[in-house]
Amino acid sequence: MTHSSTDNIVQTLENWILGARAGVKLPTSRELVEEYSVSPVTVRNAIHVLSEKGLVEVRPGVGVFTKPHRAARVADYGWQAGALGALQNDLPVITPAQKTGSPDVIALNNGYPDEALLPTDQIRRTMVKVSKEPDSLKRSPVRGLPELQNWFSHQVECSPRDVLIVNGTQSGLTAIFRSVVGNGQPLLVESPTYWGAILAAKQSSIVLHPVTSDEEGPKTEDVEKTLKSTGARVFYAQPHYANPHGRSWSQKRKAEILELVRKHDTFLIEDDWAHDFWFNRSHTPIANQDADGHVIYLRSLTKSVSPAVRVGAVIARGPVLHRITAHAAAEAMYTSSLLQRVALHIVSSNAWNKHLNSVRRELKQRRDDLLDALRSKAPEVTVNHIPAGGLNLWCEVEESIDVEKLAQVSESNGLLISPGQGWFPTDPTGSFFRLNFAGSRSENFSEAAESLHRAISEIRQ
Amino acid sequence: MTHSSTDNIVQTLENWILGARAGVKLPTSRELVEEYSVSPVTVRNAIHVLSEKGLVEVRPGVGVFTKPHRAARVADYGWQAGALGALQNDLPVITPAQKTGSPDVIALNNGYPDEALLPTDQIRRTMVKVSKEPDSLKRSPVRGLPELQNWFSHQVECSPRDVLIVNGTQSGLTAIFRSVVGNGQPLLVESPTYWGAILAAKQSSIVLHPVTSDEEGPKTEDVEKTLKSTGARVFYAQPHYANPHGRSWSQKRKAEILELVRKHDTFLIEDDWAHDFWFNRSHTPIANQDADGHVIYLRSLTKSVSPAVRVGAVIARGPVLHRITAHAAAEAMYTSSLLQRVALHIVSSNAWNKHLNSVRRELKQRRDDLLDALRSKAPEVTVNHIPAGGLNLWCEVEESIDVEKLAQVSESNGLLISPGQGWFPTDPTGSFFRLNFAGSRSENFSEAAESLHRAISEIRQ
Repeated sequence: MTHSSTDNIVQTLENWILGARAGVKLPTSRELVEEYSVSPVTVRNAIHVLSEKGLVEVRPGVGVFTKPHRAARVADYGWQAGALGALQNDLPVITPAQKTGSPDVIALNNGYPDEALLPTDQIRRTMVKVSKEPDSLKRSPVRGLPELQNWFSHQVECSPRDVLIVNGTQSGLTAIFRSVVGNGQPLLVESPTYWGAILAAKQSSIVLHPVTSDEEGPKTEDVEKTLKSTGARVFYAQPHYANPHGRSWSQKRKAEILELVRKHDTFLIEDDWAHDFWFNRSHTPIANQDADGHVIYLRSLTKSVSPAVRVGAVIARGPVLHRITAHAAAEAMYTSSLLQRVALHIVSSNAWNKHLNSVRRELKQRRDDLLDALRSKAPEVTVNHIPAGGLNLWCEVEESIDVEKLAQVSESNGLLISPGQGWFPTDPTGSFFRLNFAGSRSENFSEAAESLHRAISEIRQ
Repeated sequence: MTHSSTDNIVQTLENWILGARAGVKLPTSRELVEEYSVSPVTVRNAIHVLSEKGLVEVRPGVGVFTKPHRAARVADYGWQAGALGALQNDLPVITPAQKTGSPDVIALNNGYPDEALLPTDQIRRTMVKVSKEPDSLKRSPVRGLPELQNWFSHQVECSPRDVLIVNGTQSGLTAIFRSVVGNGQPLLVESPTYWGAILAAKQSSIVLHPVTSDEEGPKTEDVEKTLKSTGARVFYAQPHYANPHGRSWSQKRKAEILELVRKHDTFLIEDDWAHDFWFNRSHTPIANQDADGHVIYLRSLTKSVSPAVRVGAVIARGPVLHRITAHAAAEAMYTSSLLQRVALHIVSSNAWNKHLNSVRRELKQRRDDLLDALRSKAPEVTVNHIPAGGLNLWCEVEESIDVEKLAQVSESNGLLISPGQGWFPTDPTGSFFRLNFAGSRSENFSEAAESLHRAISEIRQ
């Protein structure tokens, strides 16, 4: 056992030494003996180890001193520029939609609902419950906890075996893009479309081909033409309350697109990100109508349960799921069983539907309040579509206004907005920005709209 | 409010209908009114919605019946074979080292410590504590919680800004390989080396170049020769208690390799997976000696804290960390703050060092017990190196024995082992298998060794 008491002191002193400057005197042996309740032999051994490691200098009769553990000079990382080479993909660390501001800022940029819209208290109680469950700290199976797979299988008409639990849908998207689309291959997308999908595609050097849309959804003929001309095998879309503009495909268009992907032996990735956030009536996923494995369905719980509970699912039928699973496993092994259990308790509780209903009412109210505020205080801002679900308003201003600049001016006035560029797979078709009405309360919207109005006036001058 | 009560019933009935066969009669309107304590109008609306959705058929005067929501036929996934094309990378979903057996099986294949070696009770108490913390459910910054970055920065001599918290080191490895090595590029590795690294490399079509080693570590001249001949910019290694064989590099070799990567403007990925699992004395990471950002350091808490707490760190200095962070963010956005907080409490508690000391004692004892059992019951098995840390014994048998077959025969006798192939970047250099002494208790080792002996005899015949 001697080694462990020695090592304890060694480790503690090592931390202390690494934080100290060179030439600082260590406590005396007697002090160390007292402080750690160990024998003088243990202390001597520890000093010996530290000296061997080159961390201290023993000056007999004087004391033990920290050694300069590194020449005091500025590190030179210049060589890395050459070693890293040109950027393969220019990926941002933090996108405008992820920026967080100080508490006195009005944040309409953020994609996450504020705490008032989350079942925070219930999650806290659930954590206590989960902490007592015998299996809660076990390693999860690669595909996820069977109980949670089962819950998801009732969300879409499928078998629990068709469900892969992932550590948030961004991980799911990454695994799908890698395994089904493939590095450098073509992918059809709507325009504008979810920035996270654009980011994940960029990372795999995937070539994005936007298709044109009308009020009913992507134009069927254009999707067919683009599938043919590019040879793409996959179409990524958000058919319900799409981020950013909140539009949904009509029933007719959904059927047409599904028929089309069937006909061309291709896949539709249905990212049902706002499944829980409808205002008037719930929708049925396209995946429910898919018999032969053409739809790869994505569903996240992060936004409706909690940003701290990163749990989502990929649902797919046939051999394609096996391929996605292999990639997801190579990337992250498995998803924390602790988070899966918390999520499972929340979504399968009796309170869940009630909670979602109150969230929907509140979101609808905030949407209306933000629209009202814009109409009365910032008439220069146009909202072309009033979304019947989701968390966002997609706003347009006259084309002469640089929305990057608008975002900067607004930020300096204490308002965060997201310039629209991030949602465009190619060039933006106008001056757009996104306002999220879920991350901030209605009482701030009037001030936000006034702030926008002032910023626009300032830029126009 | 009417819409929410209707939608509640719609949703509940939808789930019910999707689970039912076609032609099944729904409860009567009166029954639904009673069951959901709603008005007859609400029920009528709900039935109308379900009928619109094509889920039920209303037969006036008779009742409401589920409709066949899909032609009753076997799904045809044959088209996917063509659409998916040839496998770009042949990735397994579950590797031998991840297989789990029934409780009556002795599992020496698994890479994870059993519950007796984990601070399970402490984690449970910590979850309760974390459940009460005001910020525990907030979204984490992309780079991780500052407090946890700070803790890691004391593990290796660096600034908290040099630390990126990841959702387990496999995610970190994936992000490093993608951003620093690059798709299809060369990478130096030891042989054998960690299967998870081989898997992550395969996924990015990275070309592995093994270097030869002696007792002190990878041969310096061979590393230099291979760096030059392949143009590789990165060397991935586990310098301490490497998985699978448990060897560590000598101090001299560590200094030589660090000097070499400096000289050639390359990176060393130091995967310090067993940092907590030394038996005789702790080791100092090579990263501590690195002044100019040549070492990218990986450290996991999953194995020492809990498989349910997937938290690890990538530590790197200079612009390279920015690039890794961008890739990690594109892949998973951020790591759950809930898990980060649990991990932080555990590793910064007073009990942590004491816990680790008892784990080390127990691991060392199990290592000795397994070695003893093999010596007395399975003398055909050679262990070339007795590891001074880690969780594994790397075993060799005569070359004529097919270890895949050995694993199969053993499994049918109730013993799980990991055939060695998975750890070889190219061809195996002999008949190896790995036994993990952390996932099973000493009392099982004698039976395990006997079982191995019988299986070997059976194969020899």
